[in-house]
Amino acid sequence: VDTVKRDLIRTALAGAGAIVLAPLAAGARVEGTGAPADGLPWKYTGLDPDATADRAYRAHRTGLGCCYGVFEGIIGQLREQFGAPYSGIPSELFAFGEGGIAGAATVCGALNGAAAAIFLTAGGTDEKKKARAFEMIREVFGWYEQEPLPDYRPGDAGSEVRRVAARSPLCHVSVSRWCEATGLKSFSKERSERCARMSASTARQAVRILNAERASSFVASHPLSSEVTSCRSCHDSGGVLEDTRTTMDCGVCHFSGETRHPE
Amino acid sequence: VDTVKRDLIRTALAGAGAIVLAPLAAGARVEGTGAPADGLPWKYTGLDPDATADRAYRAHRTGLGCCYGVFEGIIGQLREQFGAPYSGIPSELFAFGEGGIAGAATVCGALNGAAAAIFLTAGGTDEKKKARAFEMIREVFGWYEQEPLPDYRPGDAGSEVRRVAARSPLCHVSVSRWCEATGLKSFSKERSERCARMSASTARQAVRILNAERASSFVASHPLSSEVTSCRSCHDSGGVLEDTRTTMDCGVCHFSGETRHPE
Repeated sequence: VDTVKRDLIRTALAGAGAIVLAPLAAGARVEGTGAPADGLPWKYTGLDPDATADRAYRAHRTGLGCCYGVFEGIIGQLREQFGAPYSGIPSELFAFGEGGIAGAATVCGALNGAAAAIFLTAGGTDEKKKARAFEMIREVFGWYEQEPLPDYRPGDAGSEVRRVAARSPLCHVSVSRWCEATGLKSFSKERSERCARMSASTARQAVRILNAERASSFVASHPLSSEVTSCRSCHDSGGVLEDTRTTMDCGVCHFSGETRHPE
Repeated sequence: VDTVKRDLIRTALAGAGAIVLAPLAAGARVEGTGAPADGLPWKYTGLDPDATADRAYRAHRTGLGCCYGVFEGIIGQLREQFGAPYSGIPSELFAFGEGGIAGAATVCGALNGAAAAIFLTAGGTDEKKKARAFEMIREVFGWYEQEPLPDYRPGDAGSEVRRVAARSPLCHVSVSRWCEATGLKSFSKERSERCARMSASTARQAVRILNAERASSFVASHPLSSEVTSCRSCHDSGGVLEDTRTTMDCGVCHFSGETRHPE
């Protein structure tokens, strides 16, 4: 990347004028939507991260997958602890997120389930609560993208599963990179085991973050890389191009020879 | 793409032996997960597609975004119609999906919300119900990727919003392609209006599919392209490489000059 050229473009385009944003008020209600009082966030008094990982792993292994696994790993405990309102949401709903939603391999279902669980227990519709929950969710995403995972091993499992940094929150990329690193097939039982452990790791990480927030000690520790920050300074909100939005690692698709299929 | 070369690789690798899949039984339950009887799918007796679109549009415009908009557009009506069990799930939970989940721009929140609503009203944990709901969800994904959208216009809106085929279920790509086609900014009020209409279109399409399924007339009409089918025959389940999984349009990232950033 020619940063000098990019800086020149940035400077030239900056003269085009400031971008005027007109966001709607978050949490504003419109007559007739008929939604009930949500009462978000729901009660959360702390969970054991390791017990959560075990439960998410077992839930995933029932056959209902990653998104169900993480949501059930966290919310299933709260349902047992508090009953209502948690008893109103069947974890089975989140089976839709399997394989990046019905197998489409978009967002990793473990992340989708973690995001839902975090928003339910720490989010809300007022702007401040929503923004804080989004920060926590993005920290789980950053952790998932940057750390070599899975870092969970079930008590009864003899063999180690190779840890690979997914570099992406997308099922497609996460699975591809793991298959490439291990030489194992994408529908092998080894990959299935890897994903069950990814669910366990992700549920545990979400609970660590929820616990930290509850103790007023949550600090995001997986920020965007300087490359991504540089890209976003032109292409994302407030940038001179402002022609996209994302927090994903730009390099994985846009600066990697891997993306382009050999002719 | 050199199809001859690809066919040679395919033939050569086919000799390596059949891939043995060992999926777990879907819906199998493991002791100690403590999940309640889910009772999925929940009652659904048909909804008006246009009323759903209007409601999703208005819900999105409250400021809680695409994922909330679609889920509330569909499920909000069922909550009013039936009360419990729908009253147990606050639509506000799905505000987590905004901007591709907390702004990360992974899966379009409209699709995430639609997938949840479809699974809740037509899915279930037994293998057959789950597979059928996944087929319906993938049809919404295919429609979203292939059709020029949004095809919804609110009654009180004077101006047309340019329709663009997203070619991807990802917020990042969907927004980028629309910005590129229109020359408008990704955080402009025009893009925000476009996304509110995307929520309306997507909720309407999901309800059309749910209604067709209820009338036993649902047939998927947005299958994978022949290119994607060809790619998947090597790279996806049962292929000789089997090194990834997805139903997304491979060409958008892997055969397009657009993906690679200019040096």
